[in-house]
Amino acid sequence: MHVHIDTDDYIVNGTKKLKLEKHKTKVKDVYKDKSEYKDLLNEFQDEINDLQRMMYADDRNSMLLIFQAMDAAGKDGTIRAIMSGVNVHGVVVHSFKQPSTNELEHDFLWRTTIRLPQRGQIGIFNRSYYEEVLVVKVHPEIVREKQRLPQEYTENLEELWENRYESIRDFEKHICRNGTKVVKFFLHLSRDEQRERFLDRIDEAEKNWKFSEADVSERGYWNDYQQAYEDAINATATQHAPWFVIPADDKKNMRLIVAQVVLEQLHALDLKYPVVSDERREELEQFRKQLRD
Amino acid sequence: MHVHIDTDDYIVNGTKKLKLEKHKTKVKDVYKDKSEYKDLLNEFQDEINDLQRMMYADDRNSMLLIFQAMDAAGKDGTIRAIMSGVNVHGVVVHSFKQPSTNELEHDFLWRTTIRLPQRGQIGIFNRSYYEEVLVVKVHPEIVREKQRLPQEYTENLEELWENRYESIRDFEKHICRNGTKVVKFFLHLSRDEQRERFLDRIDEAEKNWKFSEADVSERGYWNDYQQAYEDAINATATQHAPWFVIPADDKKNMRLIVAQVVLEQLHALDLKYPVVSDERREELEQFRKQLRD
Repeated sequence: MHVHIDTDDYIVNGTKKLKLEKHKTKVKDVYKDKSEYKDLLNEFQDEINDLQRMMYADDRNSMLLIFQAMDAAGKDGTIRAIMSGVNVHGVVVHSFKQPSTNELEHDFLWRTTIRLPQRGQIGIFNRSYYEEVLVVKVHPEIVREKQRLPQEYTENLEELWENRYESIRDFEKHICRNGTKVVKFFLHLSRDEQRERFLDRIDEAEKNWKFSEADVSERGYWNDYQQAYEDAINATATQHAPWFVIPADDKKNMRLIVAQVVLEQLHALDLKYPVVSDERREELEQFRKQLRD
Repeated sequence: MHVHIDTDDYIVNGTKKLKLEKHKTKVKDVYKDKSEYKDLLNEFQDEINDLQRMMYADDRNSMLLIFQAMDAAGKDGTIRAIMSGVNVHGVVVHSFKQPSTNELEHDFLWRTTIRLPQRGQIGIFNRSYYEEVLVVKVHPEIVREKQRLPQEYTENLEELWENRYESIRDFEKHICRNGTKVVKFFLHLSRDEQRERFLDRIDEAEKNWKFSEADVSERGYWNDYQQAYEDAINATATQHAPWFVIPADDKKNMRLIVAQVVLEQLHALDLKYPVVSDERREELEQFRKQLRD
């Protein structure tokens, strides 16, 4: 089976500026029906699994997938859908909620850094250090009330955001050079579709647990968030750590596009199983003989 | 009591290039005799302790002291001498030996980053991420044999060291802007004095445990190490994360100079006990009343 997805339609890697309002939240479906969607998803899972096993054996590269989005865009479901088929030894997911008191005792990159994937692993951050230039930028009082920075670094907030962008760029360049490919997803949801999904969370009993008052109040800051996303993406989109802005109004479509991106990024790593030297081959033959006894 | 130490004699902060051979390993003693040395050290300990308590109460700033040196220069003894009098809640020391297998599964800054001091603390690194451009640069086979980097990043070693210097500069700038002042010490020992100390480790029964064959073989790379130190210091000396090159042939003298630097750096942080607002003062008075019962 084959599906045509041109991931260049969604990449933002610093070559030109992103205008978020020009990016669609809905595109033509890449699948015919639910059954084809399932087949395609299974194919993607299998291929990703094969490449991840090779990455694990090679033990040099790792990959960090970052998922950011407005509430109800479908981060959890996308991560679950794409990674469910993959060997659990090779994938580690971390969801970042509000920082703990202990985490606030450190610089803003610390709590995510300690959870970076090991060589050979795919690490997934469900939210990430980008929250520090998204929710914190929309609610800058968080800086002064919760983040106990020395005063000289909080007096000029514009400078603070620029410094944070720079810290993030430097950090991603550093881990990339040390073997961790960073791939960042913004799941791009429309305001109307978010309302529908929130209403579902009120109307459908088994979705009630997902409803939160805070989500509705954050909706009031929609435009501020869109601006913060646009600024953050533009400030941190690079060749070695690109963003992908994925239309999120159709969940199945979104998942297939994300899967295609992950697959392409894994292929680009030039993974291979470790080559056995002639000397080692000789040794293995000796072991074969010992095992005859 | 008063002692005159001009720490500007030892600072390297990027304003001019360091030539290590022009730096003395022995200077005129700043203390008269052993008794005065002890008094001076106690004074330093008390002052450092007072400032550290204020830093702990304020809970905004932290300080990272990095100690690097050739073997037998006296890192352990210096750290012990200066920090012994200080509240153990406020000081955390980490000694970094050869990286573990688990640590090698991450980028070269990871194992030290997870051990950074919290706000309000003085963190001390006995050796540090600088080993990655010191011992690893003197023995570059470590990169290919132990550090499982993707091949493209190890083909050009000169580029690798430059990239590591840059990563270190970026990292120190980042933590500085987030409240951690970085102060770096190179304890500068002469080759002759090192030989004397190694001989003591052979001759004196209670020092025998400190003697290691590896130390003697590393001594054969003396000039390579001096060059690696000079390069690393020049590449990473900045205003916000300065190096101090401390004459190390006299241990007591070295300790007093290091203590003076630490004290000055703490003073420069502009620490203060948190100011109680009028509102809070009112609350405290209410609590006083309740406590009468």
